[in-house]
Amino acid sequence: MDKIEHIGIAVRDLEKSNDLYAKLLGKSHYKMEEVLSEGVRTSFFEVGPNKIELLEATSVESPIAGFLDKKGEGIHHIAFAVDDIVAEMKRLESEGFKLLNKEPKLGADNKLVAFVHPKTAGGVLVELCQERK
Amino acid sequence: MDKIEHIGIAVRDLEKSNDLYAKLLGKSHYKMEEVLSEGVRTSFFEVGPNKIELLEATSVESPIAGFLDKKGEGIHHIAFAVDDIVAEMKRLESEGFKLLNKEPKLGADNKLVAFVHPKTAGGVLVELCQERK
Repeated sequence: MDKIEHIGIAVRDLEKSNDLYAKLLGKSHYKMEEVLSEGVRTSFFEVGPNKIELLEATSVESPIAGFLDKKGEGIHHIAFAVDDIVAEMKRLESEGFKLLNKEPKLGADNKLVAFVHPKTAGGVLVELCQERK
Repeated sequence: MDKIEHIGIAVRDLEKSNDLYAKLLGKSHYKMEEVLSEGVRTSFFEVGPNKIELLEATSVESPIAGFLDKKGEGIHHIAFAVDDIVAEMKRLESEGFKLLNKEPKLGADNKLVAFVHPKTAGGVLVELCQERK
């Protein structure tokens, strides 16, 4: 794993949170993007080599809606940048981690992504993400 | 804020978690350190420009013990690297954030640290940390 690509944070109101995180981080978000397959609207902030991704649910079936109901606003996942997501998924499975996806899927920010089940990863939802070529 | 310095993760058993995160991250931790003032033992992993900090409580009064009781194992805080922690604390206060420390204090990893109250920061416990000169 090359670096923390981003931290995903669940928020109730993306516009309000864009303002709040702009104040916190001292700079504005640089893009917003809707990911229909995940039922989320996202907003990205750059912090040096890393990003903060705010996630707002766009449907009640969205995993983010479920997270907000259970836990409220806050950190949702850590995403690590990887060079070869398929090789990394195989490595993690061989180490006993359970993956939530059988194959990489298209996520926000033009990335191929896959998630590790938090029950096998110390309560942390871990995302792998690889830049699409 | 220059980058994500580290992500702090609350764990119940540091030795077990060292093994788990070594498998997850594909490398071993590079140091362990006890922070008496915080009632924690910590372990650090490098991931490119970023770190993962595992936190185990060493006393029942430790904030980590309280976190584990309420929420279980998982992500505890995001720490951002800053050049001038006092200036950054002043900037955040002027933007309406509440700080948990009036002055920077000595944290793990030879850093000066201060925390932002999660109630003012979208449910996220934010740490500022500055390398000690």
